[in-house]
Amino acid sequence: MARHLYRCPLRWADMDMYGIINNVAYLRYLEEARRDLMAPLAIVDDENPLFRGDPVVISHTIDYKRPLIYRPRPVDVETWVSQIQTAMVTIDYQVKDGDQLCATASTVIAPFNHDAGRARRLTADERALLEKYLEASAQPEAVASRSGSGTVRK
Amino acid sequence: MARHLYRCPLRWADMDMYGIINNVAYLRYLEEARRDLMAPLAIVDDENPLFRGDPVVISHTIDYKRPLIYRPRPVDVETWVSQIQTAMVTIDYQVKDGDQLCATASTVIAPFNHDAGRARRLTADERALLEKYLEASAQPEAVASRSGSGTVRK
Amino acid sequence: MARHLYRCPLRWADMDMYGIINNVAYLRYLEEARRDLMAPLAIVDDENPLFRGDPVVISHTIDYKRPLIYRPRPVDVETWVSQIQTAMVTIDYQVKDGDQLCATASTVIAPFNHDAGRARRLTADERALLEKYLEASAQPEAVASRSGSGTVRK
Amino acid sequence: MARHLYRCPLRWADMDMYGIINNVAYLRYLEEARRDLMAPLAIVDDENPLFRGDPVVISHTIDYKRPLIYRPRPVDVETWVSQIQTAMVTIDYQVKDGDQLCATASTVIAPFNHDAGRARRLTADERALLEKYLEASAQPEAVASRSGSGTVRK
Repeated sequence: MARHLYRCPLRWADMDMYGIINNVAYLRYLEEARRDLMAPLAIVDDENPLFRGDPVVISHTIDYKRPLIYRPRPVDVETWVSQIQTAMVTIDYQVKDGDQLCATASTVIAPFNHDAGRARRLTADERALLEKYLEASAQPEAVASRSGSGTVRK
Repeated sequence: MARHLYRCPLRWADMDMYGIINNVAYLRYLEEARRDLMAPLAIVDDENPLFRGDPVVISHTIDYKRPLIYRPRPVDVETWVSQIQTAMVTIDYQVKDGDQLCATASTVIAPFNHDAGRARRLTADERALLEKYLEASAQPEAVASRSGSGTVRK
Repeated sequence: MARHLYRCPLRWADMDMYGIINNVAYLRYLEEARRDLMAPLAIVDDENPLFRGDPVVISHTIDYKRPLIYRPRPVDVETWVSQIQTAMVTIDYQVKDGDQLCATASTVIAPFNHDAGRARRLTADERALLEKYLEASAQPEAVASRSGSGTVRK
Repeated sequence: MARHLYRCPLRWADMDMYGIINNVAYLRYLEEARRDLMAPLAIVDDENPLFRGDPVVISHTIDYKRPLIYRPRPVDVETWVSQIQTAMVTIDYQVKDGDQLCATASTVIAPFNHDAGRARRLTADERALLEKYLEASAQPEAVASRSGSGTVRK
């Protein structure tokens, strides 16, 4: 059981008017981390060199723990898999600045056949890759705080 | 008890490589809808005409219900307040394309004193505005589906 | 000879750390204005409802005249056509806040067959639409200032 | 006389619906390259750790030479200074994918005192840094193609 580490470069423009990384920019960091996690599965078709295997995003949950200010060095995005189902996968993340936790997040994705325009099952290769990162959720407090109303945070 | 309606313009660039509005762009729509909801509270200082009263975002939860394709007409973002605490507010949203529900979401925000760099309590004016939109959550199924593991979605 | 007017909505996130609309965001406004200009030509294929006729961008020139601060009301983007060639078109713009000129810009675009992956000639329909907006450049000083070195600006 | 090299990471989301890096995203790459060039001048105030010395952008010119497709490795942005004036500087760039030239661009910037809200002269430190990268324009063909009409490209 290992976590995947993606060192995500920030951009100056990720800061908003308040001089901190805007909350929406973190979702881009998660997107980059997911792509890096899945990179071994990418198939590049030479005729039409696009990745065709991207899953679709079903939901995101993100909790911001402390503000992040732009600097040239990347942030660490630790990623792991907290649940694998037939046609759905839950990816968990911690965004860290050194030892400091900046955000925790979770994304549910579903494999998708973009050419056919419909959901599909995980392939054996996908499952094998994802199982390397399978780990019981390390964010139980997030679960507990949400069970009451779905949105409350301690 | 009313919902706030913001008709949010899309941008062509909100589409990603798959020709659908990218999941991250929805968070921008929520940001715009929150600002429109709070607009009556905006104080514009003529010397330095920036909004200084913006709350900070504590967390987001968003569930994508159906894909959205760019078109010139806006989407409807219905917004209401599902919980008001001393120093924290939960905003719920439905992103709709006519009758069709595209996404539901929830954001916890906290009033913040940007000059002092610290959290603050809601002002009476803020509370009065927010109470006009207070409504028990209309998204109970989202809560239920999340109470088991925090991230799984039926 | 008419100019095309697009009232372009701003987004709060278009502001950067300095509390003004970031220079790069203006290029998005130009993109939206170009699409609105060309909207009568858009063909939507029901099977795969994407616009397939978009030209590619060959070059941009933009001069920023005064800073723009976020506000809920749109900016005006006046657009016209300053040159039509067999396989290339020059679009000029003025971005205005009421009477005040915020930016002037010019974009060279080329019709493109995205399915075949190659440039193509203008169609008769495209030419007919573009000719309605044909106007000798209203920005001669921009041309003059650039003829010496290509990059110097008075 | 040296050029400054910035290896600029791409993001998947920089691609647009056509599966190529969107023309506007290149301006972000230039922004990142400029910041990297100027990084030795950045002053970080510990109380309010923001860069306060950023110049403002007066104009951009960019010519796209070939499409760029997302991949995990960075693009090279070579940057140099083509003109230094009392209160204005011209920065030239080449965006390269290995040996292939993807875009050439030029930006005029002006030193700016953001606290006072007005333009200022270059400081001696800024001038000294910029002179290290001073080079007559290496893009004469771009100049020639523009001298006729300001926007036409061969």
